[in-house]
Amino acid sequence: MGTRVVEPGEFPFAAAFLEHNHIYGQCRGLVEAGAQLKWVYDPDAEKVAAFLRAFPGARPARSYGEILEDPAIRLVAAAAVPSERCALGILAMEAGKDYFTDKAPLTTLAQLKKARSAVRRTGRKYAVYYGERLHSECAVLAGQMVKSGAIGRVVQVLGLGPHRLGPVSSRPRWFFDRAKTGGILTDIGSHQIEQFLFYAGTEDAAIDMARTANRFHGDFPGIDDYGDVALTGANGALGYLRVDWLTPDGLSSWGDGRLVILGEKGFIELRKNLDLATGNGGNQLYIADSLGERHVNATGMTGYPYFAGLILDCLNRTENAMTQSHAFKAAELAVRAQMLAEEKKEERK
Amino acid sequence: MGTRVVEPGEFPFAAAFLEHNHIYGQCRGLVEAGAQLKWVYDPDAEKVAAFLRAFPGARPARSYGEILEDPAIRLVAAAAVPSERCALGILAMEAGKDYFTDKAPLTTLAQLKKARSAVRRTGRKYAVYYGERLHSECAVLAGQMVKSGAIGRVVQVLGLGPHRLGPVSSRPRWFFDRAKTGGILTDIGSHQIEQFLFYAGTEDAAIDMARTANRFHGDFPGIDDYGDVALTGANGALGYLRVDWLTPDGLSSWGDGRLVILGEKGFIELRKNLDLATGNGGNQLYIADSLGERHVNATGMTGYPYFAGLILDCLNRTENAMTQSHAFKAAELAVRAQMLAEEKKEERK
Repeated sequence: MGTRVVEPGEFPFAAAFLEHNHIYGQCRGLVEAGAQLKWVYDPDAEKVAAFLRAFPGARPARSYGEILEDPAIRLVAAAAVPSERCALGILAMEAGKDYFTDKAPLTTLAQLKKARSAVRRTGRKYAVYYGERLHSECAVLAGQMVKSGAIGRVVQVLGLGPHRLGPVSSRPRWFFDRAKTGGILTDIGSHQIEQFLFYAGTEDAAIDMARTANRFHGDFPGIDDYGDVALTGANGALGYLRVDWLTPDGLSSWGDGRLVILGEKGFIELRKNLDLATGNGGNQLYIADSLGERHVNATGMTGYPYFAGLILDCLNRTENAMTQSHAFKAAELAVRAQMLAEEKKEERK
Repeated sequence: MGTRVVEPGEFPFAAAFLEHNHIYGQCRGLVEAGAQLKWVYDPDAEKVAAFLRAFPGARPARSYGEILEDPAIRLVAAAAVPSERCALGILAMEAGKDYFTDKAPLTTLAQLKKARSAVRRTGRKYAVYYGERLHSECAVLAGQMVKSGAIGRVVQVLGLGPHRLGPVSSRPRWFFDRAKTGGILTDIGSHQIEQFLFYAGTEDAAIDMARTANRFHGDFPGIDDYGDVALTGANGALGYLRVDWLTPDGLSSWGDGRLVILGEKGFIELRKNLDLATGNGGNQLYIADSLGERHVNATGMTGYPYFAGLILDCLNRTENAMTQSHAFKAAELAVRAQMLAEEKKEERK
């Protein structure tokens, strides 16, 4: 899926810090767009071995430094422990590489300040894998449709991002540590906030409400299993998003991710990972407008143009795939929403 | 649909004030449960004539007073202009009748105070037709399932209640007058708040956020075409609801009403009026739990037990169909949400 925009060898990159499996999606997207995965590094040899089975062309590096010292490397893709993503990214940028991190790209406003400053200082990119939009064909299609005016001006974006927690043993220890993940809104909420900004067509927003709750995981005080946020965009578009770690065992996907974009003249609903009890699979787009109701299986329709766009942005120093300010603004709002929800929780105590 | 719980003549009632077509649903529900529609009254003879075509057994009354003076009448069903519903209900209760009004049952906190006081003084009922739950078989089925523990403890209730505005000429003048309707959250929002209280199993809630907007109907400053509310129930369950007057022309229903009940062990989604682009029709219930995903067409499964329950509650002076406090609390929260949204709007000016 996707267009190759570079010849073999034109865009060598490295994968480092394999703490989240998203690194596989990040690398697959880049490789499919023509990039060459040269190095892989993680302190855990088992993670590296598993990664090499998926990407046998990569070479294991002995250290992060070995990657940063290779002048051929254009970009470092990474999925570190969230609280460490910023510092590792700044190292990459200071070594002259662009950085492409899994979301959440950072976990505190202090990190954000450092990241923004490093981008200015180094001129490098701090790109973010907001995979729930970038790596979803129905989400890409919806973006094209909204841009073309299919539903008129956007009134509201409603995002549901439920996730399966799975067996506790399947999760790394940092997953249960608020200081490491940044919290549910910073982490999985950031996808939703990024989507709000994107589909609403706004580059800033006020947070009207944020809530988090740990309803059923009292043994793990470092997580919340529920969160939601309401936003008002600078252009007046409204947003509401809900995330949770409560996907039931019987669901055929890790989460029934939905997105509803309400417009002046119609609305679009995405059923991203499955179409409940239909067997249709994911990637389903539904639209109602002045002409009627339609259902589009978006699988195979769009590919994932973000990755080719990112490579070209790195080569040409442009911002067509995603602007730096958008990537950071989504992260900022996610962190601020988390902070607001935690303040409110404290007040209730 | 529904069980007849009284013999002909055991429960005579009257219909008065036909400002909203909901009066047809209110009367049909009662008649199907065995009640006898004896009188109809409206100042507009055309409305009465149309009503008599649907209910030819009713007699037109010359005045509201004629109904209230008939000692045989047990209950007055009414769908007056919303701001007048309370005063008309108090007249009915003072005449010894139970009152069964369309939602919103009232439009201000001052009216609510009078209504509560009249209920205490007269011992009569001020029942409310929250039709989006009471007159929806998938909603009834969902209530039975939640009560039986199908999804465990309820974490969040998410309600979407979009409505079609339709041609302006199809609406009465009061529809565009904020003082008469009480506003979008008081009016169509009250359905959603009632559903939140019901499915969450809580009898009170705090309002965390309320927003209204008039995005596309600037010619009608007395309406808002968008509203949303976030609530926290006294039992910790969370709620979010969104309503609008933006149903696109091509939708096969007046609104794609949805309800998602997120529980500890699964979730239920209702597609109340249609199942987008499937031709399934309305009344569709989807559930995911520990065993898998299922789809139930609820049409014909439950009937509408509320109406039989209301008749029995009136005869036996019980509160099995719905408690008075629940009916009033939903109305109170709807009015308070409207007030909060309008305060916030003023602050932004």
